[in-house]
Amino acid sequence: MALSSEAPYPTCPFDYRYGSEEMRKLFRRDNMLRRYIDVEVALMKALEEVGIAPKGCYEVLSKCALRVKVEDIDRLESKYGHDIASLAIALAEACGECGKYVHLGATSYDIVDTAWSLIIKDALRIVKDKLRNVLNLLMRLSIEHKDTLMVGRTHGQHALPITLGFKLANYVYELSRSYERICDLEDRLIRGKVSGAVGTMAAWSDKGPKIEEIVLKTLNLRAHAITTQVAPRDGFAELVSALAILASQLDRLALEVRELSRNEINELIIASGKIGSSTMPHKSNPTIAERISGLAKVSRSLITVALENIPLMHERDLTNSSSERFLIPHTFLVIDQMLIDTERMLKSLRVNKEAMLRNLNLSKGTIMTECLMVKLVVKAGIPRHKAHLMLSELSKKALGRGVSLRDVINESDVAKLLSRDDINECFDYSRYLGSYEYLIERALNYAKNALRRC
Amino acid sequence: MALSSEAPYPTCPFDYRYGSEEMRKLFRRDNMLRRYIDVEVALMKALEEVGIAPKGCYEVLSKCALRVKVEDIDRLESKYGHDIASLAIALAEACGECGKYVHLGATSYDIVDTAWSLIIKDALRIVKDKLRNVLNLLMRLSIEHKDTLMVGRTHGQHALPITLGFKLANYVYELSRSYERICDLEDRLIRGKVSGAVGTMAAWSDKGPKIEEIVLKTLNLRAHAITTQVAPRDGFAELVSALAILASQLDRLALEVRELSRNEINELIIASGKIGSSTMPHKSNPTIAERISGLAKVSRSLITVALENIPLMHERDLTNSSSERFLIPHTFLVIDQMLIDTERMLKSLRVNKEAMLRNLNLSKGTIMTECLMVKLVVKAGIPRHKAHLMLSELSKKALGRGVSLRDVINESDVAKLLSRDDINECFDYSRYLGSYEYLIERALNYAKNALRRC
Amino acid sequence: MALSSEAPYPTCPFDYRYGSEEMRKLFRRDNMLRRYIDVEVALMKALEEVGIAPKGCYEVLSKCALRVKVEDIDRLESKYGHDIASLAIALAEACGECGKYVHLGATSYDIVDTAWSLIIKDALRIVKDKLRNVLNLLMRLSIEHKDTLMVGRTHGQHALPITLGFKLANYVYELSRSYERICDLEDRLIRGKVSGAVGTMAAWSDKGPKIEEIVLKTLNLRAHAITTQVAPRDGFAELVSALAILASQLDRLALEVRELSRNEINELIIASGKIGSSTMPHKSNPTIAERISGLAKVSRSLITVALENIPLMHERDLTNSSSERFLIPHTFLVIDQMLIDTERMLKSLRVNKEAMLRNLNLSKGTIMTECLMVKLVVKAGIPRHKAHLMLSELSKKALGRGVSLRDVINESDVAKLLSRDDINECFDYSRYLGSYEYLIERALNYAKNALRRC
Amino acid sequence: MALSSEAPYPTCPFDYRYGSEEMRKLFRRDNMLRRYIDVEVALMKALEEVGIAPKGCYEVLSKCALRVKVEDIDRLESKYGHDIASLAIALAEACGECGKYVHLGATSYDIVDTAWSLIIKDALRIVKDKLRNVLNLLMRLSIEHKDTLMVGRTHGQHALPITLGFKLANYVYELSRSYERICDLEDRLIRGKVSGAVGTMAAWSDKGPKIEEIVLKTLNLRAHAITTQVAPRDGFAELVSALAILASQLDRLALEVRELSRNEINELIIASGKIGSSTMPHKSNPTIAERISGLAKVSRSLITVALENIPLMHERDLTNSSSERFLIPHTFLVIDQMLIDTERMLKSLRVNKEAMLRNLNLSKGTIMTECLMVKLVVKAGIPRHKAHLMLSELSKKALGRGVSLRDVINESDVAKLLSRDDINECFDYSRYLGSYEYLIERALNYAKNALRRC
Repeated sequence: MALSSEAPYPTCPFDYRYGSEEMRKLFRRDNMLRRYIDVEVALMKALEEVGIAPKGCYEVLSKCALRVKVEDIDRLESKYGHDIASLAIALAEACGECGKYVHLGATSYDIVDTAWSLIIKDALRIVKDKLRNVLNLLMRLSIEHKDTLMVGRTHGQHALPITLGFKLANYVYELSRSYERICDLEDRLIRGKVSGAVGTMAAWSDKGPKIEEIVLKTLNLRAHAITTQVAPRDGFAELVSALAILASQLDRLALEVRELSRNEINELIIASGKIGSSTMPHKSNPTIAERISGLAKVSRSLITVALENIPLMHERDLTNSSSERFLIPHTFLVIDQMLIDTERMLKSLRVNKEAMLRNLNLSKGTIMTECLMVKLVVKAGIPRHKAHLMLSELSKKALGRGVSLRDVINESDVAKLLSRDDINECFDYSRYLGSYEYLIERALNYAKNALRRC
Repeated sequence: MALSSEAPYPTCPFDYRYGSEEMRKLFRRDNMLRRYIDVEVALMKALEEVGIAPKGCYEVLSKCALRVKVEDIDRLESKYGHDIASLAIALAEACGECGKYVHLGATSYDIVDTAWSLIIKDALRIVKDKLRNVLNLLMRLSIEHKDTLMVGRTHGQHALPITLGFKLANYVYELSRSYERICDLEDRLIRGKVSGAVGTMAAWSDKGPKIEEIVLKTLNLRAHAITTQVAPRDGFAELVSALAILASQLDRLALEVRELSRNEINELIIASGKIGSSTMPHKSNPTIAERISGLAKVSRSLITVALENIPLMHERDLTNSSSERFLIPHTFLVIDQMLIDTERMLKSLRVNKEAMLRNLNLSKGTIMTECLMVKLVVKAGIPRHKAHLMLSELSKKALGRGVSLRDVINESDVAKLLSRDDINECFDYSRYLGSYEYLIERALNYAKNALRRC
Repeated sequence: MALSSEAPYPTCPFDYRYGSEEMRKLFRRDNMLRRYIDVEVALMKALEEVGIAPKGCYEVLSKCALRVKVEDIDRLESKYGHDIASLAIALAEACGECGKYVHLGATSYDIVDTAWSLIIKDALRIVKDKLRNVLNLLMRLSIEHKDTLMVGRTHGQHALPITLGFKLANYVYELSRSYERICDLEDRLIRGKVSGAVGTMAAWSDKGPKIEEIVLKTLNLRAHAITTQVAPRDGFAELVSALAILASQLDRLALEVRELSRNEINELIIASGKIGSSTMPHKSNPTIAERISGLAKVSRSLITVALENIPLMHERDLTNSSSERFLIPHTFLVIDQMLIDTERMLKSLRVNKEAMLRNLNLSKGTIMTECLMVKLVVKAGIPRHKAHLMLSELSKKALGRGVSLRDVINESDVAKLLSRDDINECFDYSRYLGSYEYLIERALNYAKNALRRC
Repeated sequence: MALSSEAPYPTCPFDYRYGSEEMRKLFRRDNMLRRYIDVEVALMKALEEVGIAPKGCYEVLSKCALRVKVEDIDRLESKYGHDIASLAIALAEACGECGKYVHLGATSYDIVDTAWSLIIKDALRIVKDKLRNVLNLLMRLSIEHKDTLMVGRTHGQHALPITLGFKLANYVYELSRSYERICDLEDRLIRGKVSGAVGTMAAWSDKGPKIEEIVLKTLNLRAHAITTQVAPRDGFAELVSALAILASQLDRLALEVRELSRNEINELIIASGKIGSSTMPHKSNPTIAERISGLAKVSRSLITVALENIPLMHERDLTNSSSERFLIPHTFLVIDQMLIDTERMLKSLRVNKEAMLRNLNLSKGTIMTECLMVKLVVKAGIPRHKAHLMLSELSKKALGRGVSLRDVINESDVAKLLSRDDINECFDYSRYLGSYEYLIERALNYAKNALRRC
């Protein structure tokens, strides 16, 4: 049995299902070749300016390059088995007399690595824009819910009251650190490689540094201080690692939403309106959050490739080539989809304040034992760890009997040691939020500074 | 500047550059959907046989399913946000009265996981065939070069003489172990999942086991003993791990070829005839071997995804879904290309026996010290470690002076302790190959048995 | 400021905090050396039997080996920089005339890899015993709670009723598959390596196969079919991968417990009695389950090392040596602690049936929509996907209004299409458990067979 | 049979075999506890200054803390099952009236995470010092061998002449980028966490920010802008990733040495003087370089743990705890040993200039084709890719016949197209090194700036 259809379908989900069109197009073969040509053209400019290529060849190449098609290169590559050599031949054939000078003195990775920098620069611009949007949304939500009371949870267990704004401000801080990391790595990664075979610039005699300068000025890139035949691969590993860290942070946020939208908790709800299950009509699943967590695993896996690509042999071996054709597009497409999903998830979130209060009361006041413990120390002179044990016992008693801690406290020694006001204060959640406003503000300021960095 | 072209290019190199068409088509969207439909149709057969669906519906669905197009499902999916639900609706709409019963009682992953088993079975068939070809080639080369003398190297340093056939027999043994692992995992992974939402078969009342039996008999699959809403994910991790191990073994073979084809060693040559470098006309690079090593890194990375997919929450969460859409096709496409490349590499290998002999002589006989040491112990009663030290000194002396060990031995105490014949014997490489023939045969027999296993 | 203490503390938590003493002692330096000596002694037996070493040397070495101390070897190693060579010298010095023949013809990895097999065999025995205990506990719990009703959850959301026994039977099945994998890999990994430098057995002339046979018979091991200077490393990768899969399955079980013991869910409780938090007296945390999940991350990470160790150069390079000294002990110690913790966790679990029922009722009957959908198709002839949409709407209405689905159904068309009995049946959880008993039994039988395998 | 010995041996090679004592002691249990106490004491200072603890308690605690022993804490921990709670009790018991206030308002991870920052700061100081030493050695070697001619190799094949100084300057640049990364990450990671349970500082009422300020000023740390109950884990992942990148760079350098010291190449020699093989007396292996490559695999593996630790649930779960006890010490100990080994390797390197020249001549002049190609374009007006093909043919002819390219050129069209001087120039290696001096200087300047950064 065959599914009728005319189109040839891709196998990779990033070619049809995940990732934005704006990101995808950066890594399509045509754009990759376009960027290679940009570098070849910039090189022609330099060769002309230093007097190796004839006057006018830069202008000529700029135009004739427009006539080269992907198919031309494919045809040549199937003959020569080398993509950049084929591109150089295609350009040469299209460009008459000036064609003679195409790629002169350059090695393939002058083109490939410099083009990677141009493409990655564009890709990081998209990542930064989307991350900025996520950060702005989170900052807005953090301010909006600055005072929305809920329980803080550690070990999956109720710990102490917090506010939703406080919780979200943590994500603001964490994600802004990823923004900083991107700024840091751009400085090391987005650099041109214009140094010829083995990196000595030998084919250009003494004009190498000048050629490098012109090419990179044209392309608006800085240079690596030195290279082998290829740019150093640590920059790529730093990129993949920084994006895997970001992915894992988004995973943490998605996990937060998935957990808080459990039926029993119900504090956050992702509005959906789509089919949740093919067989259970009642289902409404946090699928968008689950997709973020699913894709985070893909992002984390890629770092292995990037790290193994660092120890290339001597002036380079080719083992980075096939693996990077896979690594770099997928690294960006996966984070692209995750940021899109995170933005959509945040925009569709509904906050259920009633559930938050109901859950806060679920533990019958026992979450306030720390407050009482501190008061027992400070006001009643009980040693801290003794007070800890006392309240631990009282807590268990309350939970065991199913009554509120308040009731148990009233019958206990604590009621003799502390004043009624002190005890009352401890059972008022909104008075036990510490310096949350100060901390939220500090986190948001941190993020604003980070966003100004690059 | 834009590269003119009509076609939309993919971003993933496995969609245009790596992997065979036979493997690629298994993971194309149309084939995936075709396999989903196979399962839906088998389910209809079961529903009909147990009396839930009307007589004749199996035949009806078998036919009307042919009319469903990928585009139809895409259109429904963009509305409902659920691929299998959309498929079920498309089938239902195409199949009249019988359409009512499409997917009845099934959950999406009954379809998806059972289809994965069908697809993976096909994919493993391709992997096994290609691995068998590689093994057969290696066995042939191993026999052909059973007696081709060369130096064995440990730590990159000359160790003792071996033969090329002996070296290759090790790869035969190693790869045949991967073949065995594939047989082992097929037994656990290639199983159908027909148990409905949460895995209890509840929607089919007491007819679940019968339905499962009919569906899986139709599809020629065995059943999982029990499942949650999805099949257990350890099977996928075992698959990815076994293929990553195979990939790393091919990497080892490729590394062997890359090293032995260095200019200074030159024992193996990969005939190429293509352009080696875009700027260095003299270059002839072992690019096919380097691609194998490059893709091995990709294969190794994927295990992280597969392992992280095991701890799904409760009766399943969705985080395996997006990651497996990425994981499974790429796992197979990468090993597919690697096996193709390995076969091509082995077929294009030229063995340079002269270089092998030249290199064997390079270390001026010092590689034969073990032989002399053993004779000093057995024939002259020198303690083993004393003999070791003696010969270590003599070796250094020979290498230091740049003369042959033989000459140094002749002037040393060793010449007094051992007979001339014994010393002569030690300097005859072909008499110091131990039980290489026996071992080669044992390795090849092991492999033949492995290949008969599945 | 300094913490006063006499003892030197270790840095690795597996040397003082995690792992059992029985497992730890297998990987202590003294036991490693003891195993190396076992192999050297077995080799002496073989050398004596084939007539290379004098009669009686096996007995002599068996005894004098007892006098060698770790410190002796350390002293020699600091001089010679080679651990096995130092061991051989220490043995030789302790054993008089027979000492001459110690290690004769063997290479270090004859000793090391054969000793690894002995040690790993012991370690896998411990793993299998502990896994068997966990499986037996799970089987018992599965039977005990065969009928304990609870809600099945997918995507963290309520799906359909299941029983706790059904849930646990899934873990039984999954873990028994890991047991099988261990049996499979033992066959490939637990093999001796007795083939001398580069693997040809050359130093033993034509007596290599006989020597190998005697050594391995003495140590009760089978032989690798062929080797380089070292045993093939794919066996180690298979081991680490199988244990990482097992670790991830235990992680899944621990996650189950962590989630089900959340305050809001409260279906499982880990009795603790210890301090939960240093500052929050009320806390009782599922720390043992969290430790399992924490250590699973360590287990998963180790596969990278094992895979990268496969592509050793030529007849071996040494890069596996340092990494395996780290890899192998930690691989076993981490799974050892995880299995201990899992057993403890399971033993301390308390099942809260009331909470299970309360949560089952939480979704106001909406989890039973699948049952109604199937009846609408089968009994009322409504197309499946139409019925799906109908019930999806009714579900949302019920949840929106905060009333039970039953109430909403009664006012809807469904009440006209289905009989009261049919509707009643759908709202009886215990009648919508499908073939759970059959499936539990099938899973337990599968496990029992697996446990009989090795 | 038992190996007699009194001492209990550790299982982890980093506890006896790898890593320096200075690094190891940072992660020993006693130092970890000492650092915890440092934070508790600093907290007491703050509590006293803001008026919560009585005057003088800081001084009291500073002294009585000295009396607490590891064993005391172990004893309490076996009772309470919580290490920091046990420490707090031990301190409280040792410190009389002031003991009441120990740990007041703090949560365990205020202590643990702030102590990690102190310990990691010390550990990074060691890493930076050792990396600086390696960089200084490499810079010195780079200058010393600025003009030492050798062949540059790509794909393992001869490419073009370079100098050893140029080769090493690449490592200088690459490693200095790792130094920069360490400076970048210190800024985000080395921060104190003083915010109590769930991070709101609630237990300290409105005095939290002041307490945080005093504690961190005392410990000379900056604060995180906000935290949950724990510091954000992205900082740890960034650390592990940066060190894994550094490890992979050292692996690249070690691989360089291992390859260049092959018998057939012999350009670099690691002086050893130790036993190379237990059975082959002649062996002298680059074991130190192999150990670097072996340990790099361990370093790369750890990133998986660190990334998986980022998505902690809500205000924290405990799954980072066990995994970090493993992760952080091993991350540092492995890089510590690698840097020590790299320094030793570089110091013991002998450069064989004769072998470098011999190998340079091995390819019979064919490596100079690029030079001729460029001249054919620039001086004779031949299109670049035509010249490429011409020289490719001539190269093959020379290598096929086993004569020098020079001879083949003389009989070819090239001799008519180019002057004798031009051809001569192309066969003078030292005139085809391009701008190597400029590039070496640029690389060294880059490194010097990097080393000044932190």
